[in-house]
Amino acid sequence: MKIYFSGSIRGGRIDADLYRDLITELKKYGQVLTEHVGSSALKEELSDREIHDRDIQWLHEADIVIAEVTTPSLGVGYEIAKAISFEKPVYCLYRENEETRVSAMIKGSPKVTCHSYNKFPEAREILCHIFGIRTRQ
Amino acid sequence: MKIYFSGSIRGGRIDADLYRDLITELKKYGQVLTEHVGSSALKEELSDREIHDRDIQWLHEADIVIAEVTTPSLGVGYEIAKAISFEKPVYCLYRENEETRVSAMIKGSPKVTCHSYNKFPEAREILCHIFGIRTRQ
Repeated sequence: MKIYFSGSIRGGRIDADLYRDLITELKKYGQVLTEHVGSSALKEELSDREIHDRDIQWLHEADIVIAEVTTPSLGVGYEIAKAISFEKPVYCLYRENEETRVSAMIKGSPKVTCHSYNKFPEAREILCHIFGIRTRQ
Repeated sequence: MKIYFSGSIRGGRIDADLYRDLITELKKYGQVLTEHVGSSALKEELSDREIHDRDIQWLHEADIVIAEVTTPSLGVGYEIAKAISFEKPVYCLYRENEETRVSAMIKGSPKVTCHSYNKFPEAREILCHIFGIRTRQ
């Protein structure tokens, strides 16, 4: 099972530690292609075009996309739409009661399953549910 | 000429007045389908699904997509990727020297033309250039 985890990078790194914890959890279910998203010391040694092409290639390879969408991010929105066009299952997790709300383009997309949560243990349960369902299919 | 203007809504409205001025400028070149993006008093009377489906329909109808991408936004990223899949020309405008940087998925996309600017008159010139080129084609 190859997992594409999507979280904000240039849009804001306030949730970087949370991404790291989610990625640690996701690694119980498969290979996380985008482990760098949870890194506290992100280095960008690639050009924008190289990052784009690498991430599109990973999206093609992925069996499932999990996105944390609380922090608004152009890249995450772009990746979700691309994942849909590649016919990948897309699950978005977000926290309620934040300053910004999740876009209607994401919450209103019939091809995206959204789950809200408050604290990390809830997110862990949601992932367990998602992968529990998928491994039974 | 039908123009789809894309700017942050739920991701943050700090640039709402700028969007309004850009839309006023864009109306010189054609019909702006998404005029509400520049409204200071946005009302959401539609469900998320209705907003999504209306905006996807407008993207289908549009001849060109112009996005202001300085404020990170899931919806704008999603719309850009959708516009590419619909084979629409996509132009992104952004301001340098802001707290956040434009996603590598946008700046690195071979199907997106990005232009940076500092003040509104520069953005106006960029639009003049974009539409000048396009109307000569």
